Amino acid sequence: MDDGQPFVIPTAFARMEDRVVIHGSAASRMLKALVAGAPACLTVTHVDGLVLARSAFHHSINYRSVVVVGRATEIEDPLEKRRALDAIVENIVPGRAGAVRAPSDNELRATRAVWLPLDEASAKVRSGPPKDDDEDYALPVWAGELPLVTTPLAPRPDPLLPPTIPLPPHVSGWRRGGRDG
Amino acid sequence: MDDGQPFVIPTAFARMEDRVVIHGSAASRMLKALVAGAPACLTVTHVDGLVLARSAFHHSINYRSVVVVGRATEIEDPLEKRRALDAIVENIVPGRAGAVRAPSDNELRATRAVWLPLDEASAKVRSGPPKDDDEDYALPVWAGELPLVTTPLAPRPDPLLPPTIPLPPHVSGWRRGGRDG
Repeated sequence: MDDGQPFVIPTAFARMEDRVVIHGSAASRMLKALVAGAPACLTVTHVDGLVLARSAFHHSINYRSVVVVGRATEIEDPLEKRRALDAIVENIVPGRAGAVRAPSDNELRATRAVWLPLDEASAKVRSGPPKDDDEDYALPVWAGELPLVTTPLAPRPDPLLPPTIPLPPHVSGWRRGGRDG
Repeated sequence: MDDGQPFVIPTAFARMEDRVVIHGSAASRMLKALVAGAPACLTVTHVDGLVLARSAFHHSINYRSVVVVGRATEIEDPLEKRRALDAIVENIVPGRAGAVRAPSDNELRATRAVWLPLDEASAKVRSGPPKDDDEDYALPVWAGELPLVTTPLAPRPDPLLPPTIPLPPHVSGWRRGGRDG
């Protein structure tokens, strides 16, 4: 939130025990507002499918979501900050953080990372078939679910990558693992 | 936003010319806050892939996002409200709104729908391979993209659906169309 106007910005994150870390450029307006004490909300949503009912009214979406509210605090300690940034990379591609060049001191200074505590959070889940009104079950209307999944396609090497560098297990395994978001 | 604390709530939507419609229960706390004049932000994000760089610092995500800010106004006119609710169903499954039982007057009253104007919006896109620091291109680290797509699985009929009701073209066609969100 910034001057009373909320802004919703897509961002990567990682959960570390009873808190979540998010990060960005030290110049990020969102992170500046957060460390200045703006009330924050972090929402993660997985869409699992469309729910087609017999009536327009009962159409829905199958999903899992978590809404976290609270105040963020800056991660100042360089070692703690390195661990938190590693956790974001590891949360998205396990095994990646140890395979790449670690942040330099300059990169660390150019990055802001904050904790958001998981003290106040709520989860919602909808799953399963539609729930129609009793009298609508007699209608000749197809009803059911259209499941949706997030699917990785074949990894696309950087055009500047020498062909001698093989695809590492943490990338090929990520694909086989079929993570859902 | 509610009493200074922003809340980010996943929701369906449809664009109608120069505005967006969102809807929910008439009892929805979010919609009550919006029609009371709370500043709103609507963000839509498609994640297109993970971007694996040679350095942790340059890891990124390929995505397309739109951030809309403004104030919502309630859709009061019943005919306009019906058209807006139809648009939400049609935006998600084209052809569906005409195939189902339309909202009753009671259902219409139990639903709140609001416009959000597209006067103030910004779009961001990242695509393509990682951008590494010059000296990092010599590192023996695999780099590239892991593309992600949203894939529909086979439609799952409601267990209460009579087997005589066939899968309609707007459902089978949706699947072949491979919509991305």
